[in-house]
Amino acid sequence: MFGKILENVNKKHPLVHAITNYVTVNDCANMALACGSAPIMADDINEVEEIVSICNALVINIGTLNERTIASMIRAGQKANQLGLPVILDPVGAGASKLRTDTALELLEQVKFAVVRGNISEIKTIDQGSGTTKGVDADSNDALNDGNLDQIVQFTKRLSEKTGAVIAITGAIDVVADQKKAFVIKNGHPMMSRITGTGCMLTTVIGGYCGANPDDLLVATATAVSCMGLCGELAFEKVWAQKEGTASFRTYIIDFMSNMNAEMLERGMKIETR
Amino acid sequence: MFGKILENVNKKHPLVHAITNYVTVNDCANMALACGSAPIMADDINEVEEIVSICNALVINIGTLNERTIASMIRAGQKANQLGLPVILDPVGAGASKLRTDTALELLEQVKFAVVRGNISEIKTIDQGSGTTKGVDADSNDALNDGNLDQIVQFTKRLSEKTGAVIAITGAIDVVADQKKAFVIKNGHPMMSRITGTGCMLTTVIGGYCGANPDDLLVATATAVSCMGLCGELAFEKVWAQKEGTASFRTYIIDFMSNMNAEMLERGMKIETR
Amino acid sequence: MFGKILENVNKKHPLVHAITNYVTVNDCANMALACGSAPIMADDINEVEEIVSICNALVINIGTLNERTIASMIRAGQKANQLGLPVILDPVGAGASKLRTDTALELLEQVKFAVVRGNISEIKTIDQGSGTTKGVDADSNDALNDGNLDQIVQFTKRLSEKTGAVIAITGAIDVVADQKKAFVIKNGHPMMSRITGTGCMLTTVIGGYCGANPDDLLVATATAVSCMGLCGELAFEKVWAQKEGTASFRTYIIDFMSNMNAEMLERGMKIETR
Repeated sequence: MFGKILENVNKKHPLVHAITNYVTVNDCANMALACGSAPIMADDINEVEEIVSICNALVINIGTLNERTIASMIRAGQKANQLGLPVILDPVGAGASKLRTDTALELLEQVKFAVVRGNISEIKTIDQGSGTTKGVDADSNDALNDGNLDQIVQFTKRLSEKTGAVIAITGAIDVVADQKKAFVIKNGHPMMSRITGTGCMLTTVIGGYCGANPDDLLVATATAVSCMGLCGELAFEKVWAQKEGTASFRTYIIDFMSNMNAEMLERGMKIETR
Repeated sequence: MFGKILENVNKKHPLVHAITNYVTVNDCANMALACGSAPIMADDINEVEEIVSICNALVINIGTLNERTIASMIRAGQKANQLGLPVILDPVGAGASKLRTDTALELLEQVKFAVVRGNISEIKTIDQGSGTTKGVDADSNDALNDGNLDQIVQFTKRLSEKTGAVIAITGAIDVVADQKKAFVIKNGHPMMSRITGTGCMLTTVIGGYCGANPDDLLVATATAVSCMGLCGELAFEKVWAQKEGTASFRTYIIDFMSNMNAEMLERGMKIETR
Repeated sequence: MFGKILENVNKKHPLVHAITNYVTVNDCANMALACGSAPIMADDINEVEEIVSICNALVINIGTLNERTIASMIRAGQKANQLGLPVILDPVGAGASKLRTDTALELLEQVKFAVVRGNISEIKTIDQGSGTTKGVDADSNDALNDGNLDQIVQFTKRLSEKTGAVIAITGAIDVVADQKKAFVIKNGHPMMSRITGTGCMLTTVIGGYCGANPDDLLVATATAVSCMGLCGELAFEKVWAQKEGTASFRTYIIDFMSNMNAEMLERGMKIETR
């Protein structure tokens, strides 16, 4: 099931339109290519409708939002909705400023999202309509652990019901759910939080996976989350063995994604259903 | 002849003003430095004339164009023309949206370009005034091969005559021509299309090579194209030997450029005249 | 003393708000994480006050300034001043255009800076109110050497008195001074000028070091400068041993920062008081 998702990406080479932040955009583009999709970044309001029309999915990331690009996000999202394309939201820093919280909420009102991926603080902000986030990282008070896992799974399913989107909460433990079914994923490594952009890159990968598997958004998203985590584990092993640091880790996580195949993925996944 | 071009870059350290996209800008800056030039990125309309005035070449890349930066591109291009500096155009995604096609055409009308470099779909769009491009990659129907090579060589020469610019069409096979003479270049490796920015980086390198060799634009451009392809070949060999992936490939292609010299280049070039 | 500065960064994980350029922003974010701080990039005028309010320091870098972001820089800087947070200025390219020179001067008028870090040409421009800079690199006529070092130390102290900020002039030799005391630092390697962003990354590291050591800005800044230079030396040794190039150097400089500790730092520092 999961391996098939990845094979579809490599077969269809989905084109992913990303309106994203300028901090991690290069990593997102390289990761998109590494995972078998092809990225196109375009944010001028006069071209986003045309660009999204030649694509298989749209990724909206509010990491360095501004007035000009917010308008483009909404325009592109509505066009993608008309075309029936999956739209993925990464509400970076929702809860850290009123502008980010309001923009995330407005996007959810104006655009129908196929998937929303964020850390626990960002996703709670979306649920509650307000929040506090330590910058772009999750608040440690919110962290998932084995003690509150069942509760978070129920929360994720309820939020999926409320929004109509697959919800992916990522952190030390990941939960990916629609209103009926949840996957709990334990791939990944703490070093992923010592480089910028692992969240943004993952959201871009989700875009490619959903673009190639539009009829199976939940499993596509869970596969992407697990695959990214697995690449993080493999990258850490290599960095550790070679006594390297975080920039090498960044290189290797993309390297492993570019060499991933269905067999390696299925062997490495740490995923269960709830 | 070719080695001399490279030596001039290392001797003169030309300063290259780039108005470029935010996806690959960091790679372009590092590649500019690696090839012996020095980059400066500046896109505010209130400074582009002054900035270009201290430079040896101007590179205009429309990869993430917007209304604000389009105006700056034209202003900078016209100033560079007044100063007699070579201006290089990378019409990223021309054909993928009306905005990109129209902007490329307007730039060609308002600014005299020394070199235009793109993939075959982008260059055909410029010739025809309209086109269809699969995002920022060439349409596979357009691909160069040994069967249509003569025809493309003739097309390239005619377009050079029409525009007054050296035309560089890059892909599996590269054609670089002015109205009289063409170079066909077979350096490069398919992995170059699995990372973002090889096209943008090449255009920046062309900027440096033309900035240091303003009286020999055709040979400077062909040398840059061949040199970039050679770095791709060397990078692939290393990635393959070490069982690495696409992000390591990106690192090595810049590494090899930073260590290139005239002898290595002339030994590795796969270039012929048509 | 110096080791304690670094330990505070690792203990407090200061959050650094950066309004910076899109060329090196990814490197700045990764370097911020590597040195133990956490970055957040936000430049919309409607959120900068809120964002800076959750941070420990603000870094302002004018490398790709435009009208929109200049207004955000001033707004964020004034808010940080109200909150008593250290604000660090990187006047990239001051002297290369009137816009850059004027913006640097206006920022110095409107915002009280804790630290200003630039190359010698940029810092002289700030002192004189005008200047000539070869793009974003220092003019070679201005270079520090053992012959003019005493004179530059005196100049640095005077400029600190005039501006109220710690002044860090970086190049082959670095001088960091407040009005009473100067550190002369001889860490670093010439290869640092063959990649983009070493200056920007250093300024971001200074932000983290000052954010975690707000009562010791002079020593925090000198420690950051020395630490960055030491990482450059270590990265060069590795690149040289492995016959690699400038992109590997970029990777390793961040790697070494991510593995730095107080003992390694104190052993490697080449610093003296003047």
